[in-house]
Amino acid sequence: MEGREGKDIENNEGGAMAMPVAVGGEEEGEGRGVMERNGVGGGGSGFFYEEEDKEMGMREPLLRRRTMNTTSQLAIVGANVSPIESLDYEIVENDLYKQDWRSRRKVQIFQYVVLKWTLALLIGLGTGLVGFFNNLAVENIAGFKLLLTNNLMLKERYREAFLAYAGCNLVLAAAAAALCAYVAPAAAGSGIPEVKAYLNGVDAHSILAPSTLFVKIFGSIGGVAAGFVLGKEGPMVHTGACIANLLGQGGSRKYHLTWTWLRYFKNDRDRRDLITCGAAAGVAAAFRAPVGGVLFALEEAASWWRSALLWRTFFTTAVVAVTLRAFIEYCRSGKCGLFGEGGLIMFDLSSTATSYRTPDLIAVIVLGVIGGIFGSLYNFLVDKVLRTYSIINEKGAPFKILLTVTISLLTSCCSYGLPWLAKCTRCPLDLDQCPTIGRSGNFKNFQCPPGHYNDLASLFLNTNDDAIRNLFSSGTDNEFYISTLFVFFAAIYFLGIVTYGIAVPSGLFIPVILAGASYGRLVGTILGPMCALDKGLFALLGAASFLGGTMRMTVSVCVILLELTNDLLMLPLVMLVLLVSKTVADSFNRGVYDQIVTMKGLPYMEAHAEPYMRNLVAGDVVSGPLITFSGVEKVGNIVHALRLTGHNGFPVVDEPPFSDAPELCGLVLRSHLLVLLKGRRFTKDRVLTGPAEVFRRFGAFDFAKAGSGKGVKLQDLDINGEEMEMYVDIHPITNRSPYTVVETMSLAKAAVLFRELGLRHLCVVPKTPGRPPIVGILTRHDFMPEHILGLFPQFKHHM
Amino acid sequence: MEGREGKDIENNEGGAMAMPVAVGGEEEGEGRGVMERNGVGGGGSGFFYEEEDKEMGMREPLLRRRTMNTTSQLAIVGANVSPIESLDYEIVENDLYKQDWRSRRKVQIFQYVVLKWTLALLIGLGTGLVGFFNNLAVENIAGFKLLLTNNLMLKERYREAFLAYAGCNLVLAAAAAALCAYVAPAAAGSGIPEVKAYLNGVDAHSILAPSTLFVKIFGSIGGVAAGFVLGKEGPMVHTGACIANLLGQGGSRKYHLTWTWLRYFKNDRDRRDLITCGAAAGVAAAFRAPVGGVLFALEEAASWWRSALLWRTFFTTAVVAVTLRAFIEYCRSGKCGLFGEGGLIMFDLSSTATSYRTPDLIAVIVLGVIGGIFGSLYNFLVDKVLRTYSIINEKGAPFKILLTVTISLLTSCCSYGLPWLAKCTRCPLDLDQCPTIGRSGNFKNFQCPPGHYNDLASLFLNTNDDAIRNLFSSGTDNEFYISTLFVFFAAIYFLGIVTYGIAVPSGLFIPVILAGASYGRLVGTILGPMCALDKGLFALLGAASFLGGTMRMTVSVCVILLELTNDLLMLPLVMLVLLVSKTVADSFNRGVYDQIVTMKGLPYMEAHAEPYMRNLVAGDVVSGPLITFSGVEKVGNIVHALRLTGHNGFPVVDEPPFSDAPELCGLVLRSHLLVLLKGRRFTKDRVLTGPAEVFRRFGAFDFAKAGSGKGVKLQDLDINGEEMEMYVDIHPITNRSPYTVVETMSLAKAAVLFRELGLRHLCVVPKTPGRPPIVGILTRHDFMPEHILGLFPQFKHHM
Repeated sequence: MEGREGKDIENNEGGAMAMPVAVGGEEEGEGRGVMERNGVGGGGSGFFYEEEDKEMGMREPLLRRRTMNTTSQLAIVGANVSPIESLDYEIVENDLYKQDWRSRRKVQIFQYVVLKWTLALLIGLGTGLVGFFNNLAVENIAGFKLLLTNNLMLKERYREAFLAYAGCNLVLAAAAAALCAYVAPAAAGSGIPEVKAYLNGVDAHSILAPSTLFVKIFGSIGGVAAGFVLGKEGPMVHTGACIANLLGQGGSRKYHLTWTWLRYFKNDRDRRDLITCGAAAGVAAAFRAPVGGVLFALEEAASWWRSALLWRTFFTTAVVAVTLRAFIEYCRSGKCGLFGEGGLIMFDLSSTATSYRTPDLIAVIVLGVIGGIFGSLYNFLVDKVLRTYSIINEKGAPFKILLTVTISLLTSCCSYGLPWLAKCTRCPLDLDQCPTIGRSGNFKNFQCPPGHYNDLASLFLNTNDDAIRNLFSSGTDNEFYISTLFVFFAAIYFLGIVTYGIAVPSGLFIPVILAGASYGRLVGTILGPMCALDKGLFALLGAASFLGGTMRMTVSVCVILLELTNDLLMLPLVMLVLLVSKTVADSFNRGVYDQIVTMKGLPYMEAHAEPYMRNLVAGDVVSGPLITFSGVEKVGNIVHALRLTGHNGFPVVDEPPFSDAPELCGLVLRSHLLVLLKGRRFTKDRVLTGPAEVFRRFGAFDFAKAGSGKGVKLQDLDINGEEMEMYVDIHPITNRSPYTVVETMSLAKAAVLFRELGLRHLCVVPKTPGRPPIVGILTRHDFMPEHILGLFPQFKHHM
Repeated sequence: MEGREGKDIENNEGGAMAMPVAVGGEEEGEGRGVMERNGVGGGGSGFFYEEEDKEMGMREPLLRRRTMNTTSQLAIVGANVSPIESLDYEIVENDLYKQDWRSRRKVQIFQYVVLKWTLALLIGLGTGLVGFFNNLAVENIAGFKLLLTNNLMLKERYREAFLAYAGCNLVLAAAAAALCAYVAPAAAGSGIPEVKAYLNGVDAHSILAPSTLFVKIFGSIGGVAAGFVLGKEGPMVHTGACIANLLGQGGSRKYHLTWTWLRYFKNDRDRRDLITCGAAAGVAAAFRAPVGGVLFALEEAASWWRSALLWRTFFTTAVVAVTLRAFIEYCRSGKCGLFGEGGLIMFDLSSTATSYRTPDLIAVIVLGVIGGIFGSLYNFLVDKVLRTYSIINEKGAPFKILLTVTISLLTSCCSYGLPWLAKCTRCPLDLDQCPTIGRSGNFKNFQCPPGHYNDLASLFLNTNDDAIRNLFSSGTDNEFYISTLFVFFAAIYFLGIVTYGIAVPSGLFIPVILAGASYGRLVGTILGPMCALDKGLFALLGAASFLGGTMRMTVSVCVILLELTNDLLMLPLVMLVLLVSKTVADSFNRGVYDQIVTMKGLPYMEAHAEPYMRNLVAGDVVSGPLITFSGVEKVGNIVHALRLTGHNGFPVVDEPPFSDAPELCGLVLRSHLLVLLKGRRFTKDRVLTGPAEVFRRFGAFDFAKAGSGKGVKLQDLDINGEEMEMYVDIHPITNRSPYTVVETMSLAKAAVLFRELGLRHLCVVPKTPGRPPIVGILTRHDFMPEHILGLFPQFKHHM
């Protein structure tokens, strides 16, 4: 399916609105059992699939193809199994589950608990290890590159220095882009939006696959070392989630690394918990902020939360912190090459005085307001650039690499070229070492004579971490000129926007912090003596305002900054600036991760129901007729239905003679049906075989959810013609307690129910007696604004 | 109803098990519309009410009275409106709501948002102000008392010193107890369990009333100043919640302080949000820990959470932090009497070295294990003491005061008597001031000659805050003898246990921190040179282990300790010790707040369903017959039903001629019926009057939830005999979209639905057609283990 209809996307990209996500994903095998559906506006039934992402990890839903012919298309729908899959957090309470639960002994429960915590430990260890390795590699590669450039500069071989610098960047960038483009396109970008969507119940294909993990780690190292204005923090979150997924699946079956006794975790609920831990561990490893990691998972990543999970997440991040600390202790002895000075070290601001007066507060508020405006502008521009890039990335892997290389050249030119504009400054007298010798440090010599430094080069010709440290440094109020800060701010703001979207793993935290810090320091320097606050503190507040303006996180950013800078006394100011900038930015647009989720066409369920949903009832958005199964169904009918539709859940209706009147027995899942059919135990007559037969034939975990793309597939079945005429009793695998709503239930309330309980299917039952016992099934897509407003355009003005 | 049957409680107290809470509260007006119900075990229908608390804010459910006569008792049930009320977070989507929503203009939505944030601001300001006032008063009163004692000691008038010390304590304790016993019994104790229960959906009567707020503030000042081993932190949380409730209700109608345009907030959902903010603000004010406050609200207090609330809570705690800071700045000039040195100041540990080796880690783990054991023992003993005290407090207000006075004398004797056991120590030479002159400080002279200090007196004859600061102080490894620390630890551990439960507002944080810190320092001193860690750090870790062991909070305790001590570098150790102690303690019993919630008979809904619920279906725990209303019902029937039952919700069933067959129209609330009946617009015939009539007669907010005990009551209605025979159309006030489950739905899933959506009533509908359209209503009490295990004793072994 890959690559088909790739062109359609361009038609859509021109549209003024964000892609109609839910509509696009409507028939992605969501299993409402609906064979026919009115098209949006038009009368035809549409079907869609989402093209697998070839461009920088983004998935763009294809335009809905309209046909007036509703039935001829049905055969194709079954084939179009979409790469987006909804997750199901409901416990499938069928006979098998109950049997399993009854037979589960205390030993098994103990085993489960021990495994759960062991996995948390392993996720912490793994993420900590990867975080350390990532930093070690970046510091060494980037350090080597910068030392080489520096040495050539010292010999006044400026042209060769540029060629060495740009060449290294180019090679690293091309390598990272090639990895991304050819091995795992899903690894491009930040990964936080995808993790967020996963935790909301949308599994984008291969987003947590082992190959994605591999590319994410090495692509990120390449990208950061190549001097791009991007961070390793977002990718670390994605990496943590991938590690959690890998461990939770018991390793990769594809690479023959399995751990079969992890069967307890073969369901969406336990996997979700693990991935939440992984995301938290990622932030903890990226920023060495264990509490910040927990809060990030809580505030930004997770859609559901419970107290027990808080504790487990906290444990995971604690393990990350301890792991990192152990490695850093080891490296302190100098065994890690160029690592040790830069990377993973806190930005220590503790010497800053933090007494402030009313004028300072006003300055901080103004800083927050402007930061909020810049932040929302950043989101707006990132969105525009992403949409443009996706057209280029669309065209294939070589174009992705070409784009990356172009941006790399642009970045190199800026980094190397702009410092020539700055004038040389005499070193302050009270310093031991100026210009700094070696890789990191505040004062870069660049083209200046000895005893002088180039302040713009001190920012540009450094790793991003070191540049931030320079900007945050306190007691260095006169180190940077206003013009320097202005040039740096403008360049970084611009480069950050054009960099996100290229085919390398790229986090948004560092570009935003970098731009924010230079903006804050610029404001602080302009205010000069009017404001008593330290310029380093201004840089920190500027970074906070940009983070609040783009990511719209408050508590977690606050704690992360706290843990980064190790100074609690500035907490009130950071809180103030975050609140102001978030409020300002929220009046313009949404957070950058939400924007990207929407743009990628991931059907994200918001926590609240939209107001217009109160004017609709659940019955308004379902449409019939349904595909339902009898409790004892003919094999042929099941196979036919599975083949014709991509639905994942089918209502089971008991009819006479098995009940007095037709009544809803429950809901059966496609995956369970496939396993049952694969067992090939059919009966000639339409009789109840009961659960005992199934218990004999299947183990408790045969029906557990397989890893993505691993379960029994329709084409795996080999059922002959005779068997097609036989019957199978699907009662034992039917979920007897599906959640139901009455068709007259307000759609808003149904949406709240759906979202709060993390459902995949919600059965709609009739209000009045004497009708078939089920009206339809609501799925995630039915609650998407695009779908509803397509059916009821009159509510558009309520948006 | 107050005081009736007060004796019954004693019979019950002797029972080995915790009170059968839910059973006790079964008919507390929960509105399942059930007129008759099989008793637990017995065949009779029981009815119950809960006696209003007269003893230290605890409410003990009365024993269920069994009668074989089911009907003669029904008349009384209506009168027994219980002081516990469930909250309803469901949006009542009736015609009125929809009409109101349609007519709501953008201006009103804007108004709502502005008000919401204004309220958050006011809650923050109010809580900050109270927090400051509390500290100011305590520091001045306790300071005066200690100075007086100290001066008498210096003159060697030891007997008079004791009399002055114990006398001051006694007067303060008696005053606080009298306030509690006579004005607001609900103000006694910590208040955190009640706030936690409120946020779970259980409103214990008058727990957030203005009188409770008043007593909580002044009682807490008295209690802390009286030298009890109790804290002001728990009461501050309760105070914050009370302030939030007061502001959210638009002031107190009783005291004619109303703010009528707060009508938007007259519902349980908005009130819950405000009270969450208030609880967070309380912690923030108590510990000056804004981030800790947010996390406390999240981890311990709140049962539901959403991202938007996180932000608002964060704003509130930021306001608290700024308010406190402003006051402290003001006090720095010495205008606040004895305030300034003690109270509200962080325990600054930043000079502590935090490098550690493997043996140190082992020491820390052992510390955590023993701390966890001590913590769970603490919970166990507190529970036993509380149960004993409740018998005494039962007997009436004078007994409450007597108990408080006894404990006060005991505390005074310990504090003044035990230091005589300690030997005098020569002051270290390098100190400016030893023994400390004035109120606070490390070194107390007590009976020692000049140039010497009594280390036990330095801990006992200080405020609790100063004692903690002394224990946490770093670089003072030899200040305290092992014997001193042992005596202090034993005394504080014991006093802390016997103090919680007396009739004064008493927090658990400080006693636990105090005992934990002395324990930690004791262990550190015993280990001596074997462990390189500072003794102050050991004290901190000991405090963390005790907090983890009693309260079972992890992330929030961690952050609170961080914010208290302002040292991020010890974070991994604190995390480790918390994780260890919580794990150890969890294997013995539950957290102290959960214990108290259970003991008070508050029907708390856990987030997870108990395993045995999977073997039951929703229909198993409801019992009929129901009281249902027709869509157009005879007034007399409604009045009769309201009088006969205490139920709060009644199903409305449409019957021919208004529908083809009987069908469930929705659910109508008692409070709405009362307002409608008070309007006295009835019709002679059974006709639909439609919503227009109701809109004409009532404003949008006439049906909004009134403050506790403020709404229309049954006795307020004056309906004459003729009107009783008339009809009223209750369709416009019927919630058309109640959540429903099918009777065969697994009880576990119904419980999850109930809990996750914060419902008060859950309608159970029949599975098979041809039966009445509703089987029963599930309420909070139906999900309580006591109720279910009473009906199905065979599941008891699954517990």
